[in-house]
Amino acid sequence: MKPAFFQHPSALVESAAIGAGTRIWAFAHVLKGARVGRHCNIGDHCFIEGGARVGDNVTVKNGVALWDGVVVGDNAFVGPFAVFTNDLAPRSPRFPAAARRYQSKGWLSRTVVAEGVSIGANATIRCGLRIGSFAMIAAGAVITRDVPAYALMVGVPARQMGWVCQCGARLAVDDKGKASCPTCRLRYEARGHRLFSRRAPAARITPTKKRRSAPGSTG
Amino acid sequence: MKPAFFQHPSALVESAAIGAGTRIWAFAHVLKGARVGRHCNIGDHCFIEGGARVGDNVTVKNGVALWDGVVVGDNAFVGPFAVFTNDLAPRSPRFPAAARRYQSKGWLSRTVVAEGVSIGANATIRCGLRIGSFAMIAAGAVITRDVPAYALMVGVPARQMGWVCQCGARLAVDDKGKASCPTCRLRYEARGHRLFSRRAPAARITPTKKRRSAPGSTG
Amino acid sequence: MKPAFFQHPSALVESAAIGAGTRIWAFAHVLKGARVGRHCNIGDHCFIEGGARVGDNVTVKNGVALWDGVVVGDNAFVGPFAVFTNDLAPRSPRFPAAARRYQSKGWLSRTVVAEGVSIGANATIRCGLRIGSFAMIAAGAVITRDVPAYALMVGVPARQMGWVCQCGARLAVDDKGKASCPTCRLRYEARGHRLFSRRAPAARITPTKKRRSAPGSTG
Repeated sequence: MKPAFFQHPSALVESAAIGAGTRIWAFAHVLKGARVGRHCNIGDHCFIEGGARVGDNVTVKNGVALWDGVVVGDNAFVGPFAVFTNDLAPRSPRFPAAARRYQSKGWLSRTVVAEGVSIGANATIRCGLRIGSFAMIAAGAVITRDVPAYALMVGVPARQMGWVCQCGARLAVDDKGKASCPTCRLRYEARGHRLFSRRAPAARITPTKKRRSAPGSTG
Repeated sequence: MKPAFFQHPSALVESAAIGAGTRIWAFAHVLKGARVGRHCNIGDHCFIEGGARVGDNVTVKNGVALWDGVVVGDNAFVGPFAVFTNDLAPRSPRFPAAARRYQSKGWLSRTVVAEGVSIGANATIRCGLRIGSFAMIAAGAVITRDVPAYALMVGVPARQMGWVCQCGARLAVDDKGKASCPTCRLRYEARGHRLFSRRAPAARITPTKKRRSAPGSTG
Repeated sequence: MKPAFFQHPSALVESAAIGAGTRIWAFAHVLKGARVGRHCNIGDHCFIEGGARVGDNVTVKNGVALWDGVVVGDNAFVGPFAVFTNDLAPRSPRFPAAARRYQSKGWLSRTVVAEGVSIGANATIRCGLRIGSFAMIAAGAVITRDVPAYALMVGVPARQMGWVCQCGARLAVDDKGKASCPTCRLRYEARGHRLFSRRAPAARITPTKKRRSAPGSTG
């Protein structure tokens, strides 16, 4: 039976857990044990390791490596050459004095990219942390701690510069802690240092039909 | 007829608009609709998308992706793993709540790299801006605004640290706003916060003969 | 005779100087004249240029390019998408006004990564400098000057934030300039602004037997 996903002739796909409608582009490599959901786009020169998990409707742009321990939620965008990690104090496992560290998986530190997050081009994501849903990480930022949902993070180390809507537009939170998206009208309210959407989360929206895209298109 | 450009056997070249004397190296991918000029060098693992345009005599080092909306002028140098963007507020186009944003090309934000610019290794170039001719961007810098011609830009976000000559040497501008390159003797003068060359622009220099380079050489 | 190293079927290996037990993974490219030691792991999409030298027991994660002029010592770890350079003021060698600069190798600036160093993911290493043995460079850091042995370097530009042991653990140096690793008990003493191990250097440790690793494992 023909698989329900598309694989560029030059891509290497060793995993059987690729969802229907997903496209995997040139020179990408998906290892055995990696799990990729439905309707994803995995760009040229990507690498998805066994143990990595990618949700549905995710866009992974070119040159991204997703390691064992990295989980990417539904509807997320991972920008080109964004770099993940999974070891907070790496040494070469071939270095005799470090070999003991790598005999078990105790060295492995996980990263959660929640649903709808956007990670900017060439951003660096230190491991052992969680990026909250719909957060937006600027291009070139270095993330060194947990990121709240809807936060816009910029710089090295990244600091929060504001809030963004599920649709990506900037939000202005008023002095009563309310915000309304100027683009899509979705409304939010702040409680403490966190922002919440005032309607059902986007993950419950009925998915639209499968979207076609040209090979290598930015989307 | 044999094409007048060189293509490594492992490279994928789907564009017909590649200039004579250009070399495209291993595991690179040039999409249909991309335009690359003459006597360029496109390094291993590069990606050039439909809609991207590259001038003549350009060196693009390894691992660079040039998107739709990115224009690179003649004689430019794009360092290894420099990262471009073309969307200021990206979301996954597969995310239902963002699908409307990607129905037209309104999301696309352009980048112009003018002639003779050097972009350092692993630099990040935010989109919607112009890098002026012969500017030099340091390795690891993040460019977040327009860059004047001949400016040396360093850091995150990048700030101007000085001026450079067309040949790449640092320039010292005196208190009368004059500078003379210690290496190639080209002279400059400042007007306001801009620097101008006092002879005909380099683009009018008669090109030298086609240059040979070994496969994968740094050049 | 079958070579004593492993090469993924999609890798391109043009060098004859690859040590026994080394593994070279998918879409990697090792040029003629590159030298790689024994028991190394070279990740997917790596590029090793003629003139680059890699010691024994080195782990080079995905997407790293090692240029002519880059020397990586025994037991080092080079994180994913760490970026090296070898030209402090690059211009396109195809740009006629810069062609003279590239007629000899005078432009080439070397980088030494000493034994046991760890370079973090997406770090940028400016050329013309030395990273001292067992130093640890944080993910996303930009190295712009020489780094002392055992130093922990963080940020852009990178600054020293502390000391690390050969095994990777953080060290606390007391007011007498002594430190003892909480993990492996190795002892150190400071003299001036430098730290020294109080036993024979790790390079003299007898190497353990060749280590097996699954294809594409993080190690």
